[in-house]
Amino acid sequence: MQFAACPMPIVDHKAIVLGHGSGGRLSHQLMQNVIWPAFQNEILSTRHDGAVIPTEKGRMAFTTDSYVIHPIFFPGGDIGELAVNGTVNDLAMCGAQPKYLSASLIIEEGLSMEDLWRIVCSMRDAAAAAGVMLVTGDTKVVDRGKADRIFINTAGMGIVPDGIEIDPCRAAPGDAIILSGPIASHGISIMSVREGLEFESPIESDTAALNGLVRTMMTASPNIHVMRDPTRGGVASALNEIAETSQHGILIREESIPIRSEVQGACEVLGLDPLYVANEGCLLAFVCPADTEPVLAAMKSHPLGRESAIIGEVVENDPGIVVMRTRIGGNRIVDMLSGEQLPRIC
Amino acid sequence: MQFAACPMPIVDHKAIVLGHGSGGRLSHQLMQNVIWPAFQNEILSTRHDGAVIPTEKGRMAFTTDSYVIHPIFFPGGDIGELAVNGTVNDLAMCGAQPKYLSASLIIEEGLSMEDLWRIVCSMRDAAAAAGVMLVTGDTKVVDRGKADRIFINTAGMGIVPDGIEIDPCRAAPGDAIILSGPIASHGISIMSVREGLEFESPIESDTAALNGLVRTMMTASPNIHVMRDPTRGGVASALNEIAETSQHGILIREESIPIRSEVQGACEVLGLDPLYVANEGCLLAFVCPADTEPVLAAMKSHPLGRESAIIGEVVENDPGIVVMRTRIGGNRIVDMLSGEQLPRIC
Repeated sequence: MQFAACPMPIVDHKAIVLGHGSGGRLSHQLMQNVIWPAFQNEILSTRHDGAVIPTEKGRMAFTTDSYVIHPIFFPGGDIGELAVNGTVNDLAMCGAQPKYLSASLIIEEGLSMEDLWRIVCSMRDAAAAAGVMLVTGDTKVVDRGKADRIFINTAGMGIVPDGIEIDPCRAAPGDAIILSGPIASHGISIMSVREGLEFESPIESDTAALNGLVRTMMTASPNIHVMRDPTRGGVASALNEIAETSQHGILIREESIPIRSEVQGACEVLGLDPLYVANEGCLLAFVCPADTEPVLAAMKSHPLGRESAIIGEVVENDPGIVVMRTRIGGNRIVDMLSGEQLPRIC
Repeated sequence: MQFAACPMPIVDHKAIVLGHGSGGRLSHQLMQNVIWPAFQNEILSTRHDGAVIPTEKGRMAFTTDSYVIHPIFFPGGDIGELAVNGTVNDLAMCGAQPKYLSASLIIEEGLSMEDLWRIVCSMRDAAAAAGVMLVTGDTKVVDRGKADRIFINTAGMGIVPDGIEIDPCRAAPGDAIILSGPIASHGISIMSVREGLEFESPIESDTAALNGLVRTMMTASPNIHVMRDPTRGGVASALNEIAETSQHGILIREESIPIRSEVQGACEVLGLDPLYVANEGCLLAFVCPADTEPVLAAMKSHPLGRESAIIGEVVENDPGIVVMRTRIGGNRIVDMLSGEQLPRIC
């Protein structure tokens, strides 16, 4: 079929660079200037982690993610488990109960059958742990040198219960921002393998399915305003997206952000700011003052939320901006990640 | 998370080879020995092009495909259009009305912004033409040399109307097998670009969304038994899968299989059997004798089905086997494709 040509939007880059996959400013520009203008419609434009589709018979959530992580096996997980958990989490962040996943494998010629088996078993076990069913799939093989061992896409479908309205637009001044656990473990686990760093005990990825935690939270209050898992681009990028979408300010306090000391140490060695490092097993929740205590208590009662903490709040001033009160008492603007810090982290 | 190890199935190959992506025998073995044993459940085991999920509120169809075609632009289409049409067709082949698509791009660093724009516009236009909405997506970037320009995954959701039961198990002796149009154009269009073949007029891919044709067919009879679009592995592989799943024999007649003369000629030059060459815009339908005439007439009334023809029938003998009566009157067993004929055809 031949389609009419359409004028290309004006963009800073003539070609794709790694930073366009960072989850930070360049990714954001690519979406805003190229992808969304092409595809705009009322569902896509909500810019959730997934689409929430109103149907006659209730609301469905639908999401997709491709996983290109390098290396494919890492401390605490592998690409298969990550591909299941990541998509389960994107559904959970829409307030949906994840139900069904698809799995599509792009395999480079030469991947050992043993590695493939290990990965598919890990997907199966992660799906069982999250209570979702892998119902359809696809396998493609490309010639040696045209992919990097294996890339996995998962798409997911879920049901959004009545009464749940999770939406970055709902962030409101006074909302407490709760973080469910220590940050930066996933990114540092990957970087330490790539850089050959040795620790007394290896730093493990936090990859986990968060739908059980979310269920617990929604039982405590169905009125959670926003949820987001701070993956690519880390806590800083997730908060910036919410600040920008809601057009409110966000204030966080450095001292209240949970991080393991060995992860903090590794960040210093690698010259990375943990606020920008990817997570795969924690979430941010925005909750109104009346709901803060019950939701926080519910989170702490769940194995994946034991270290939950209030890290800040939504404020009236500085709309669209994230500010951090540092340990020494200063204020620092936490901008969106510019360029690429950790390529192929998920 | 650490999962228990599970013993690996016994397989012929120690590593993945290109043939595992062929859609033929090796693909089939990989599914049967590695993928399905890991993921088995009652929905996946129907082995449709997509999953049909019974819900309290009706049946949903869900499918996924990754597109790794090389080259990404080809006569008659590009990877973006193909990615939309292919997934729309997988839904349509379940008898579903396609509704929503996801799109996930894996981009190699260095892809020009212009090529990306051309591809996303083509996805948009193909989605509009098929009447589906692209509602969610994802973009990943990998370093130069770790992918091949762009790979695209689309997943799709649709609704299966009440009363529709499309299932390869429903193939029954006496069913007519109708093919909706001439075969092998897609594969030959790709191969001719790769091999630098010149024709008087370029052979174009048949890529098209078949959901409109299917709607027309289902209006003529909601009782169509099986539908399948013969993509990777061609008509031969699709018929073999249906013969195997239904455990009936299939007899086709060479002289009734539509093929354009220039495509036939190119197949001869390239040494390819058109029965094994990929299609992206035609379908096979299995219809009981009473419905054959109305369904065929409906197909011929649709722009994508004008050249529809009855190419054979389901028979009592030779369960699981596809036999072709050749032009010169002999019988030839049409086996599943073994090895890889045309890598990266979709």
